[in-house]
Amino acid sequence: MERKNGNPLSYGDYLQVQKLLNCQTLSSAGDKPVHDEHLFIITHQTYELWFKQVLFELDSVRELFMTPVLDESKTLVIISRLNRVVQIFRLLVDQFLILETMTPLDFLEFRGNLEKASGFQSLQFRLLENKLGVKEESRIKYNQQHYQSVFSDTKSMELLKDSLESPSLLILLQRWLERTPGLEDNVFNFWKKYQISVNRWLEEKLLQPVEKETDPKRKETMMAEYQKEKDTFDSILNIDKYNMYVERGERRLSHKAFQGALVISLYRDLPRFNQPFQVLTLLTDIDSLLTKWRYNHVMLVQRMIGSKVGTGGSSGYQYLRATISDRYKAFLDLFNLSTFLIPREYQPPLTTNIKRRLSILSLSKQEEEGVSSGSDSNSGSSADVVDGSPAPDDGDTGANKKVVFE
Amino acid sequence: MERKNGNPLSYGDYLQVQKLLNCQTLSSAGDKPVHDEHLFIITHQTYELWFKQVLFELDSVRELFMTPVLDESKTLVIISRLNRVVQIFRLLVDQFLILETMTPLDFLEFRGNLEKASGFQSLQFRLLENKLGVKEESRIKYNQQHYQSVFSDTKSMELLKDSLESPSLLILLQRWLERTPGLEDNVFNFWKKYQISVNRWLEEKLLQPVEKETDPKRKETMMAEYQKEKDTFDSILNIDKYNMYVERGERRLSHKAFQGALVISLYRDLPRFNQPFQVLTLLTDIDSLLTKWRYNHVMLVQRMIGSKVGTGGSSGYQYLRATISDRYKAFLDLFNLSTFLIPREYQPPLTTNIKRRLSILSLSKQEEEGVSSGSDSNSGSSADVVDGSPAPDDGDTGANKKVVFE
Amino acid sequence: MERKNGNPLSYGDYLQVQKLLNCQTLSSAGDKPVHDEHLFIITHQTYELWFKQVLFELDSVRELFMTPVLDESKTLVIISRLNRVVQIFRLLVDQFLILETMTPLDFLEFRGNLEKASGFQSLQFRLLENKLGVKEESRIKYNQQHYQSVFSDTKSMELLKDSLESPSLLILLQRWLERTPGLEDNVFNFWKKYQISVNRWLEEKLLQPVEKETDPKRKETMMAEYQKEKDTFDSILNIDKYNMYVERGERRLSHKAFQGALVISLYRDLPRFNQPFQVLTLLTDIDSLLTKWRYNHVMLVQRMIGSKVGTGGSSGYQYLRATISDRYKAFLDLFNLSTFLIPREYQPPLTTNIKRRLSILSLSKQEEEGVSSGSDSNSGSSADVVDGSPAPDDGDTGANKKVVFE
Amino acid sequence: MERKNGNPLSYGDYLQVQKLLNCQTLSSAGDKPVHDEHLFIITHQTYELWFKQVLFELDSVRELFMTPVLDESKTLVIISRLNRVVQIFRLLVDQFLILETMTPLDFLEFRGNLEKASGFQSLQFRLLENKLGVKEESRIKYNQQHYQSVFSDTKSMELLKDSLESPSLLILLQRWLERTPGLEDNVFNFWKKYQISVNRWLEEKLLQPVEKETDPKRKETMMAEYQKEKDTFDSILNIDKYNMYVERGERRLSHKAFQGALVISLYRDLPRFNQPFQVLTLLTDIDSLLTKWRYNHVMLVQRMIGSKVGTGGSSGYQYLRATISDRYKAFLDLFNLSTFLIPREYQPPLTTNIKRRLSILSLSKQEEEGVSSGSDSNSGSSADVVDGSPAPDDGDTGANKKVVFE
Repeated sequence: MERKNGNPLSYGDYLQVQKLLNCQTLSSAGDKPVHDEHLFIITHQTYELWFKQVLFELDSVRELFMTPVLDESKTLVIISRLNRVVQIFRLLVDQFLILETMTPLDFLEFRGNLEKASGFQSLQFRLLENKLGVKEESRIKYNQQHYQSVFSDTKSMELLKDSLESPSLLILLQRWLERTPGLEDNVFNFWKKYQISVNRWLEEKLLQPVEKETDPKRKETMMAEYQKEKDTFDSILNIDKYNMYVERGERRLSHKAFQGALVISLYRDLPRFNQPFQVLTLLTDIDSLLTKWRYNHVMLVQRMIGSKVGTGGSSGYQYLRATISDRYKAFLDLFNLSTFLIPREYQPPLTTNIKRRLSILSLSKQEEEGVSSGSDSNSGSSADVVDGSPAPDDGDTGANKKVVFE
Repeated sequence: MERKNGNPLSYGDYLQVQKLLNCQTLSSAGDKPVHDEHLFIITHQTYELWFKQVLFELDSVRELFMTPVLDESKTLVIISRLNRVVQIFRLLVDQFLILETMTPLDFLEFRGNLEKASGFQSLQFRLLENKLGVKEESRIKYNQQHYQSVFSDTKSMELLKDSLESPSLLILLQRWLERTPGLEDNVFNFWKKYQISVNRWLEEKLLQPVEKETDPKRKETMMAEYQKEKDTFDSILNIDKYNMYVERGERRLSHKAFQGALVISLYRDLPRFNQPFQVLTLLTDIDSLLTKWRYNHVMLVQRMIGSKVGTGGSSGYQYLRATISDRYKAFLDLFNLSTFLIPREYQPPLTTNIKRRLSILSLSKQEEEGVSSGSDSNSGSSADVVDGSPAPDDGDTGANKKVVFE
Repeated sequence: MERKNGNPLSYGDYLQVQKLLNCQTLSSAGDKPVHDEHLFIITHQTYELWFKQVLFELDSVRELFMTPVLDESKTLVIISRLNRVVQIFRLLVDQFLILETMTPLDFLEFRGNLEKASGFQSLQFRLLENKLGVKEESRIKYNQQHYQSVFSDTKSMELLKDSLESPSLLILLQRWLERTPGLEDNVFNFWKKYQISVNRWLEEKLLQPVEKETDPKRKETMMAEYQKEKDTFDSILNIDKYNMYVERGERRLSHKAFQGALVISLYRDLPRFNQPFQVLTLLTDIDSLLTKWRYNHVMLVQRMIGSKVGTGGSSGYQYLRATISDRYKAFLDLFNLSTFLIPREYQPPLTTNIKRRLSILSLSKQEEEGVSSGSDSNSGSSADVVDGSPAPDDGDTGANKKVVFE
Repeated sequence: MERKNGNPLSYGDYLQVQKLLNCQTLSSAGDKPVHDEHLFIITHQTYELWFKQVLFELDSVRELFMTPVLDESKTLVIISRLNRVVQIFRLLVDQFLILETMTPLDFLEFRGNLEKASGFQSLQFRLLENKLGVKEESRIKYNQQHYQSVFSDTKSMELLKDSLESPSLLILLQRWLERTPGLEDNVFNFWKKYQISVNRWLEEKLLQPVEKETDPKRKETMMAEYQKEKDTFDSILNIDKYNMYVERGERRLSHKAFQGALVISLYRDLPRFNQPFQVLTLLTDIDSLLTKWRYNHVMLVQRMIGSKVGTGGSSGYQYLRATISDRYKAFLDLFNLSTFLIPREYQPPLTTNIKRRLSILSLSKQEEEGVSSGSDSNSGSSADVVDGSPAPDDGDTGANKKVVFE
């Protein structure tokens, strides 16, 4: 802050308005200033300010996820910060409508001045992608360049390096999901139950009708449909297949984490899963909005330069068009989760055992007593059960530890 | 649905598109159809469809609140439905921008045909207000008419009657807030602690500086400021004063419920208060958006008819202008809550006792044991403590019942 | 721009990203940084950046209006820049939804650090109001202060002074409207014709039905309604009354300019009035959105501080609430224009004479030929006639001069 | 309208609210109603209502374009109706955010009931595409079906047939653009001048630097760039190439119409081109928003059903994903126009001759007089000249006829 000597802090000091409003220098400033360049600058600058805010929120959320034992009292904080990111992205998506009031001919007037300067060089946008979890190997090259090659100053390179080395939100989500209660073999064993349910559902809903069908042509079609659906589910039920998709980059989460996401989605009404479900939804929202942002960007570029070569030297439109694919969705798996939902009537019913552990409200006096009078050696310190998660490297394999979520 | 004989269900059948698209009859249809009347009708009809959706959501939320023991697993449902109402209202606020493309002169062309028809006669909007909790006595008369007088058919009158007689969301919120854990005398006694904190804060922050001040003029100003702030807090600390505001209609919630809202706001980071805090925020959002909707409506009317008399015979603009006041905010108290927040450092620290009851995660093994081995007579069956609420008319005054929240 | 030595211009240099992202210093930065302060700063800074853009557009529009001879080829430019301002304000209105994710308790944590800093001190917002045309005498005092008293540095004071002394958009609009073709006595004499039309309309639509009515009570009501409507129209038909409203600040435009606005609204379908009508609509849009912006601001403040005293020392909520009135609408008259529209069937029909002058399309082949054979030596004078306007005080009353518009 | 006997028209009667609110029948209504189905229905129904409005506007715009002599006084009407369509589409794009609050699991609960019903069967959406000008041959098959095969009732089939046979907005735009003044050989001969300008620009900006370059590698790169740019321009300068693109469906407009669009874009500041330029911009906006609508739809479908087979039997996500391509943009050429803009300094300067014809403001006093002395008997022909356009098949080639635009 630039508080003036002796004076009380003013609005202008606090917000550094002078300095802020001194950052707009038109490249066309000399003899032929182009009116619309002002809008071009302001729009990009507000984007950069909001990106700073988004990074600030994401960093804080990542930090909360990174604490070895996630303090459950922080879940509301995580939710409200992710929600804020969602609100910001809604604005940023709309903001293109303003820049679209610039006309291509105006842009052409100062575009030459920008030389090689290009949005491809926005450091914050790269940091944002990396911190969310866009994978290096999924990136499309732009103008035969890797994006990192455009950043040559030490500070930028360090920030980029850090964004790649510190765990992305995707990685942190994965670790967190892998600890979802309900996945443990000896308590609920969700995965085994889910497999059975899926098979029952496929059998009853798709296979049995095939068998009853007499018309050979229809029979064939129905059989093909059954087979297709079965193959789809196989891609997660069969871990080898699952991992093949991971290797190809078509799935991001570990199989264990994927299971966790599925448990939360299916049983989101359990109090214990309410907030985790909100987290998953918000992350999907963010990914969806970021993709919409990319798409609106493409539309803008097509309007402004058509198929001309971009200022960065590439055919900007083609490059940007390519980034709208699923490859750039960090949380693609959450998007695709719905492929693997099965109707409620087929869902594995919860056991009293798991219910008790998952529902914060289901403890009857007897159960409470059971808990406390129960042998410490097995039902365990309820503290662990509910209090949070073991550190990721916690070697304890006691059953009770397994029920931990965060 | 209007499925055609023998055919499989189609999109058109399912959504009754034919019927829906048959509901637009221009009053100017005869010799001189006015183009813009079509927009006028469609806009109002989409408003009515969305109002139906909002009422549908509010009714379901009210029902959930009305169950004698609120199943905690329903909190996520409440939150997601209220959030949906928020999203709908965001759209409805924006929707006025479309109707603003109608010009006053176009409106004038068919306005005469509308006779006495007026938005004042929207049944669903009245139901919405009543179900949220806008008070009958707060309403402003329109054209010397009470709004109910315009509905003469039996069905409408019954629906209105029901909307007034069944508990509004405000009333249900009040009952729920009155059961907020932490308010009980014998466990935490929040209110007493809060009073002490407020006084200490006023004393240290506002009164002591006055005493140190030597300049008489400044001293006077500062004293006035202290007094003003003190009076503000008195309006809630002194129950008689509080109730006077309630009688005047300037406050809506009972004193007990207001305490509950304050507890939740101050300690929202406690896991137990996370979701209740989300509920309070969403209700404030809804009230805020509804007021913005009203305001955008006023702006539209001013553009379309200026200060002319409305189709309903009133000076529409003046009437609508008057409804933007706080009198029409059902959750006004939630809006004003911030007046009574005090800095975190002055907040009454939670006791182990209350923390244990409020934080689902704070139970140590020892505490667990304490719980179960503790005397039933006071710390009570944890089932009641956490599981739900007594029925509203529950006469039981046992201490353990007091700790109940939902 | 901060181009680094020798290197080609980069995105970061061009947009001065480093400097921009160095402007966020949390007042709570020391021992207890408050997370949400970051959002508070970023939101205000993006507001200031957009205000700069809005001022940039308004200044350019004012300049175009200020040229003694408005080059008609600039009308599209004016329209597209005003439209841009509309798009920006739509965004700014929505932007409050992001700041609303800050909770009152978070705000309370750093609010004390802001001392007397307050949005009341935003220089750009004052410039914006002044340049649009909010009148000094309409302003409400805040904390017994005039807004100018908070700006003590020379540069700010000069900018304010200039914003008051150079003609506001309202004043420029007025001058432009006063030259609307059709107002001249000797060509069309719109005002006289309009008076006759209004009287005929009042007579036929409102008075004659009164005379036919036999029920005395109804007769009385109808008579009162007629009288009320007549009084309303008198407020513009009677110039003395009109000027009284102007003196009271309830009307802003001169009577002549008001006539011009009415002509354009009634005959907007004439090619010559198409774009002027778009200008009037856009100015109304801007005023409407600015008021919605104010209203959303009020809602935010109420949520954040309730009825507490604002950082500037005033009861912020009460002050802001007061600025939502019509007193702060620069283009109030355009809003109220619709009061004085009359149905198309009563509108004074255009004469061939005025039509020819107003319609760019009335040239016959012969006229075309006449055109091409016209002597070049006199084509110079065409500049005055159509290319622009005579200076406001132009005494020339030649018929051809009358066709002047902008 | 359903006015009740004897009663004055009410809001409910006028808007047919009862009937409207009777169109929501949940497929899950029986034993296990699924709460979220209500939202699903309401959202689709509001989409259908808005589609009706959009079709209503587009039909009226098409009608205005179809009149053999386009009354110039209708341009404002066209602009304001297209602008309304833009505002509506902005809302429709946002509306997906509401449906996204439905969760996949909820959808799964009633999805089975929908049988083969699918958005693919929305008649209005097909009409919309056809009336805008999406080409039959560009459409992607869905589930090996042509979209028309799903409509079996006579009325739907007739509406579809008509939407294909009556000229689309694209066709009408083409006819209109082909008559753009400035294209005629004998007056301005824009195309010839443009060719020269392009060649000069390519030569000076891209070829000459190549020749000066000494480094062989760089020389090669620069030469390649020059060649690429030259090829791009060749695709319009060489009519045969242009037509090849048209045949491939990669361009939509005739070469002549494309020239017209280019003239308007380059000289949009001329008063005569102001409004045509607004028309082109609005059509681009509509296409852009429709594509964003499609994209948001895809995102929604991916969230709801992942890669499951759609209700219509297809893999809905894949099909919808494919419709986001340029093939579905009716006004693709307007999007790509910017490819062929050249800097203002290279633009062919306007001749006095063409300026006079294009500027509505170039009449000198003498010309005015000429006008007024023009014989009325011939003013009839003025209709053809300026009041509108000759019928497309008008054989008259008189010079003055050439000045015709709309």
